[in-house]
Amino acid sequence: MTDHDDATALIAQMGEDARAAAIELAQASSEQKRLALNGAADAISRRRADILAANDKDMRFGRDKGLADSMLDRLRLDADRLRGIDEGLRAVAGQPDPVGEIVAEWDRPNGLHIQRVRTPIGVIGVIYESRPNVTADAGALALKSGNAVILRGGSESLHSSGAIHACMVDGLRQAGLPETAIQLVPTRDRAAVTAMLQAQGLIDVIVPRGGKGLVGLVRDQARVPVFAHLEGICHIYVDRDADPAKAPRVVLNAKTRRTGVCGAAECLLIDRSYPEAQRQALMQALIEAGVEVRADGDLARIPGTVMAEPDDFGREFLDMIIAARLVDGVDEAIAHIRRHGSQHTESILTENDATAQRFFSGLDSAILMRNASTQFADGGEFGMGAEIGIATGKLHARGPVGAEQLTSFKYLVTGDGTIRA
Amino acid sequence: MTDHDDATALIAQMGEDARAAAIELAQASSEQKRLALNGAADAISRRRADILAANDKDMRFGRDKGLADSMLDRLRLDADRLRGIDEGLRAVAGQPDPVGEIVAEWDRPNGLHIQRVRTPIGVIGVIYESRPNVTADAGALALKSGNAVILRGGSESLHSSGAIHACMVDGLRQAGLPETAIQLVPTRDRAAVTAMLQAQGLIDVIVPRGGKGLVGLVRDQARVPVFAHLEGICHIYVDRDADPAKAPRVVLNAKTRRTGVCGAAECLLIDRSYPEAQRQALMQALIEAGVEVRADGDLARIPGTVMAEPDDFGREFLDMIIAARLVDGVDEAIAHIRRHGSQHTESILTENDATAQRFFSGLDSAILMRNASTQFADGGEFGMGAEIGIATGKLHARGPVGAEQLTSFKYLVTGDGTIRA
Repeated sequence: MTDHDDATALIAQMGEDARAAAIELAQASSEQKRLALNGAADAISRRRADILAANDKDMRFGRDKGLADSMLDRLRLDADRLRGIDEGLRAVAGQPDPVGEIVAEWDRPNGLHIQRVRTPIGVIGVIYESRPNVTADAGALALKSGNAVILRGGSESLHSSGAIHACMVDGLRQAGLPETAIQLVPTRDRAAVTAMLQAQGLIDVIVPRGGKGLVGLVRDQARVPVFAHLEGICHIYVDRDADPAKAPRVVLNAKTRRTGVCGAAECLLIDRSYPEAQRQALMQALIEAGVEVRADGDLARIPGTVMAEPDDFGREFLDMIIAARLVDGVDEAIAHIRRHGSQHTESILTENDATAQRFFSGLDSAILMRNASTQFADGGEFGMGAEIGIATGKLHARGPVGAEQLTSFKYLVTGDGTIRA
Repeated sequence: MTDHDDATALIAQMGEDARAAAIELAQASSEQKRLALNGAADAISRRRADILAANDKDMRFGRDKGLADSMLDRLRLDADRLRGIDEGLRAVAGQPDPVGEIVAEWDRPNGLHIQRVRTPIGVIGVIYESRPNVTADAGALALKSGNAVILRGGSESLHSSGAIHACMVDGLRQAGLPETAIQLVPTRDRAAVTAMLQAQGLIDVIVPRGGKGLVGLVRDQARVPVFAHLEGICHIYVDRDADPAKAPRVVLNAKTRRTGVCGAAECLLIDRSYPEAQRQALMQALIEAGVEVRADGDLARIPGTVMAEPDDFGREFLDMIIAARLVDGVDEAIAHIRRHGSQHTESILTENDATAQRFFSGLDSAILMRNASTQFADGGEFGMGAEIGIATGKLHARGPVGAEQLTSFKYLVTGDGTIRA
């Protein structure tokens, strides 16, 4: 047997177990799921020493492998981060249960009563990189929404994820739910990722959490549907009617609050009619904050800017760099974003309602904002409690994906011996 | 160039045109779309002679080709059927516009106001067989939901579909909407179907309307997501607490009202505790109505039944045939349906609320019914006005797919210079 056959057989077995667990989970009570999540949180505290020891092993492995500091930082667990995981689990436990919610109901003239009711999707596959906390976050959201989940963490975080996964299983056991409701792929073998991506009939949807490399791989190899965004090429447009007191603050936050997140602004568009003095002030604020402004055309004449290359537009820098360009009003901004954007998040700064309306209706990104920082593109900030990822596709899930978007629905139709004419 | 290259190039061009039209359509007003649909209905009446002449051509072609009578019947248009098309278009015109509907809205503690708003999906591909009226139905639903559509009708109905399509274009023109909003693939070449199924990035979702052959082809070849059901293996379960006054009526309707539709019952499950006399009466009613009852075990002892083969369970007869079996209560019924069903529609006959509840929660078919005929599995009967098809997948669309389920959504977030801490 090759590695590939091994991996396929492993995922097939895990998939069968997950499907069986999914049937039980779909009928689990809200109370049982809450119990399991709070039980898992208790276990995180109780098993703290084990988790930190497992993390130590991973950190040593990572250092030996020569992982970059930023990767090691993502991998690291400490008391604070464990508290974060504990709180996250309890927060999801406290959320309302989406399963069984009656989304709509109506009566027909023939007496039929029709309800549309939320149900779990079935089996979710989550493929992630070095952050071990995703084991808890993704596991919790899948369980909350009544889905079985197969988790495949980064190879660097194998022991840490394993220790956290053991806590999730503790919780499941305590609540009398099948332990195979939350499974962790127990191998570093990369072939398991491919096997998951092609597990049609076993996994209903894949959620990749990671960089462009992972998401690109998923896009190319997946036969199973995917909830994902490939890139977050977010735009912020400063309109002629922007409030100059708000603009620099919001633009700076959109770019610099955190540069490595998918909601960070990567391109600044400024209306040619935005007053020149304000335009200069805005650019100055960015430059003083340490942002490299790659400017195009007239804008490149402002001291401190760097001349943009054509491919700086439509590029995800994930760094203290922003592309900048002047446009002729909102319509040119829309056209630019349509051409260069990635349908993730765009923001307009304007006090003009009609212009904002045009921006909202002319674009079709998952998230459109007005007078707000693109960095709000996040399930927590949307009030969803937690997110399993952000999606830019048009089918089923879009924007931050929380427990609710991990559900499907069915129709329940009640008659009284009703027949069709 | 091979046929395959030709077809790929044709679909690529139609796809580009559709994408461009979709941007305009997404911003079309409700009034414009209503105008286009009513205009198309007017054109159906005005061009009646043309349409019937085109249909004559198709009927001659079909007869020469030796098409079965049932196929010829589906292909045939007459004054009555044209009136049906006219009324269907006006009904969709009169429905509320789903696009722009605010599905949810809420405020965040930081002052952000978030709206979740319906948007079109983009470009829909519809692949159908001989019924030319699908040209109007599917075109109308796609337009109502702001989507561009590429229609590929059966090769037998090329002229009829072309004549109806011309009416749709009349309506679009009248309303000032792009004519490429509704396109009809102008060739009998089968390679066009494959090209549509693989037109990733051009077509967002495919809806196949037709028999198992077509849907199987779609399932095997599609790279684009699909809203479909492969089979309608619908079950009807007569519980021990069924009302014997209702049971025969509902079972007969579920089987015999129309046998060729996907919502027709294909398997009858009877609780072993349902009184023997009633059981006999039920079987007798079916046999007298001309249904071939393929019975299993004890049930096969009832005179007039035929002995079932194992593969009669899980089979879509689409005929005056029903498989029948005794089960030990609702749990065995659920297990049987889970094993043999196709997640389309199942019905329980019972006066017992707890048993009905168990059936509803233990199964995950798109449609579950109580004391009602499975033949109600239909968008019109659900009050959706019309349907583009019935889906049994778990992502995005399920059950009868009307205009609403042809939409996606986006988030509109409004702040006041709001930045993230």
